[in-house]
Amino acid sequence: MLALRSIEPAALRRYPKPAADGLRAAAAQLHGLTPEQVVAVNGGDELLRLAVTTFVEPGAPIGVVEPSYSLYPVLAEIHGSPLVQIPLEPDWSLPDDLGARMKRAGVQLLMLVNPHAPSGHLIEVPRLAALARELSCVLLLDEAYVDFVDPERAHDAVSLIAEHDNVLVLRTFSKGYSLAGLRAGYGLGAPLLVEPLLWKTRDSYNMDAVAQRLATVALEQRTQAAETWRKVRSERGRLARELTALGFDPAPSQTNFLLARVPERASGPALLRDLEQRGVLVRYFDADRLRDSLRITVGTPAENDRLLSALRELV
Amino acid sequence: MLALRSIEPAALRRYPKPAADGLRAAAAQLHGLTPEQVVAVNGGDELLRLAVTTFVEPGAPIGVVEPSYSLYPVLAEIHGSPLVQIPLEPDWSLPDDLGARMKRAGVQLLMLVNPHAPSGHLIEVPRLAALARELSCVLLLDEAYVDFVDPERAHDAVSLIAEHDNVLVLRTFSKGYSLAGLRAGYGLGAPLLVEPLLWKTRDSYNMDAVAQRLATVALEQRTQAAETWRKVRSERGRLARELTALGFDPAPSQTNFLLARVPERASGPALLRDLEQRGVLVRYFDADRLRDSLRITVGTPAENDRLLSALRELV
Repeated sequence: MLALRSIEPAALRRYPKPAADGLRAAAAQLHGLTPEQVVAVNGGDELLRLAVTTFVEPGAPIGVVEPSYSLYPVLAEIHGSPLVQIPLEPDWSLPDDLGARMKRAGVQLLMLVNPHAPSGHLIEVPRLAALARELSCVLLLDEAYVDFVDPERAHDAVSLIAEHDNVLVLRTFSKGYSLAGLRAGYGLGAPLLVEPLLWKTRDSYNMDAVAQRLATVALEQRTQAAETWRKVRSERGRLARELTALGFDPAPSQTNFLLARVPERASGPALLRDLEQRGVLVRYFDADRLRDSLRITVGTPAENDRLLSALRELV
Repeated sequence: MLALRSIEPAALRRYPKPAADGLRAAAAQLHGLTPEQVVAVNGGDELLRLAVTTFVEPGAPIGVVEPSYSLYPVLAEIHGSPLVQIPLEPDWSLPDDLGARMKRAGVQLLMLVNPHAPSGHLIEVPRLAALARELSCVLLLDEAYVDFVDPERAHDAVSLIAEHDNVLVLRTFSKGYSLAGLRAGYGLGAPLLVEPLLWKTRDSYNMDAVAQRLATVALEQRTQAAETWRKVRSERGRLARELTALGFDPAPSQTNFLLARVPERASGPALLRDLEQRGVLVRYFDADRLRDSLRITVGTPAENDRLLSALRELV
């Protein structure tokens, strides 16, 4: 990130652009939208909070699928909103009647992380379009991991915005652009959906000058990040094959991690501990349908080799 | 700000400390408090929003004095809260019955900017203590300009925290530390007052790694900023004397600006325009009790000389 070195300290003295005009213009250009369809945020979590406070009356229900991102229930609780949680299908796809059930429950916002965490499952755009059509409330598509999707899938949820004025797409720089330290993201949607986020509920100066500048440069130099995404996809495939050979059952993933069911003779918590003792960090979720699995982040080839040789010893 | 150059790009890849532990520790040490009495924020405006959403039930009234910071009414409106506005005395001090009137109106939060903007008037600590005692709601003291107060005044509103668990003090790096581009500030209060701001309503990662680091360094290198404050105070005195000699009537100011009533033969809007044509920027407020005045920021000696010689031509 040479761009960090290029920031003039003088730029810190002045107030930043309140609505991050440069970043919004760059994101609009990338996605073939106008700046009025873009809101820049201090990390994806801020957009999630803004969506809740902007589109949900206090106390009105919010919809999520189960399992999902742990922040969604926290935001609902702060807002005094009951959570309508509907379990995903065994293959982590959406239930056919998801829209109907959410509508019946009167949710004012449905939040989906897609590709899904922790499974890595990708919901295709036609399914999302049908859901958006069915719902009268806002459908927030949290695309935190979208940069790792195979290009052959030709996944483009942003295309939904043109026809569905209730679709809000969330992008972040934390994962795909390796800028988690910065707090930078943006939301995409119809101008009328974006307008209150941009001019009403957002703090006047929500994004500092450094984050605005570095995020803009990251979009401009997207080919550099894309090279990382290619490597992650390639290693993801290798890691899945090797894990399968070791008796694990990794779910097909379009993210930078694999949710891998451990072999029958092994236990998730025991493997988590044994790997940690060998300096290898993975994640374990003590939650329904996840207790037999580990979530393994796709690392560099050397990191993945270290994980695999540790697992070879352990299982 | 050499500290900007010292940030390792690698620090941008990792998520920042969620609650800005380093910055909170530095602020706690500076003020003789514990980190549990400090919440770090993405600019002072974020703390104002958090105070509203944390301490005010939606629709319940919020108190301010008039005139005051233009963001307070905006935040109240977003929260659906009626605003209880009580005019300041002619010398910009607080009315004696302010606490009683706010209490009668049932406000759940009273926000005061002190030293006051745009007048520069400083409310002394004993008056604030009496007000805090009188109120049952939260008293937010927005000390955005406090770094410019004369040390001889020995102003220390942070000392109120020990005895008044309803006092929340706001500090920012935007003015006194010339870091407006960064978005950094903090709130100080009793542990029970700070706790919900810190762990409930605040976004999990509200402050990025760069802002956390540079704000911490700014506190550690406070003597550098203090030299600027000393220069501002010295120039403020000179500017006030010279403006008085020109027929202006500047209010006694403890900030980095002067609210100066223009001479009777002159007009505020005309002077604003004529100064702008000469490349000198001042502020004019089209509001009750401010229409006969200009708000003049204290600049460098050369900038102040330029302003004064322009005014000599104009009045």
